Amino acid sequence: MRTLNPLYPTCPIRNIINRMSDKWSLLILSTLNQNNIMRYKELNAAIPDISQKMLSSTLKRLEEDKLINRKMYAEIPPRVEYSLTKTGKEFMPAVDMMVNWALEHFEEIVS
Amino acid sequence: MRTLNPLYPTCPIRNIINRMSDKWSLLILSTLNQNNIMRYKELNAAIPDISQKMLSSTLKRLEEDKLINRKMYAEIPPRVEYSLTKTGKEFMPAVDMMVNWALEHFEEIVS
Repeated sequence: MRTLNPLYPTCPIRNIINRMSDKWSLLILSTLNQNNIMRYKELNAAIPDISQKMLSSTLKRLEEDKLINRKMYAEIPPRVEYSLTKTGKEFMPAVDMMVNWALEHFEEIVS
Repeated sequence: MRTLNPLYPTCPIRNIINRMSDKWSLLILSTLNQNNIMRYKELNAAIPDISQKMLSSTLKRLEEDKLINRKMYAEIPPRVEYSLTKTGKEFMPAVDMMVNWALEHFEEIVS
């Protein structure tokens, strides 16, 4: 059981959304949503501006939060594949809605 | 014109969403969405765990990004009111969808 926000233990923003609404989480989730199953190297190639440390720690957190699956194959060298879980897939419509909103208002916001 | 991500100048996540998907931005936007017009003190009272420095800097950034209006009345003492812009209001359906998803999956994710 994860430690919850002491003041607001039931707040969905403080306890849940805050852990996956950062830039790297959203980029990883969106990339997996477009490609279904990816290996670490493929994710790293698809998001070149993320450091290996950040990619590994974000993948670990997204797995802990049950948004992504991590599947390891007993091969040499070991093969690891990532994909969205059902819960992860159900998060994506909200992400897509944010992306569409951002594209629609891009010029206005950055000008 | 704001400086854009040098590698990905058109990316909606890196350039837009990343600036308003943090915990404090989402809490301020959601609070304003429920209360229409609020003063600084009211916002601070509604989000007691935010520091004054963070509240001020987040409000400033959300205003820069055209998500909130800041209206100052020439009174003594000066009165300042915050509210969502049209663009800000159009961001909220995506935020509400994230909140509903988080509430639905709360137990699963934190357990």
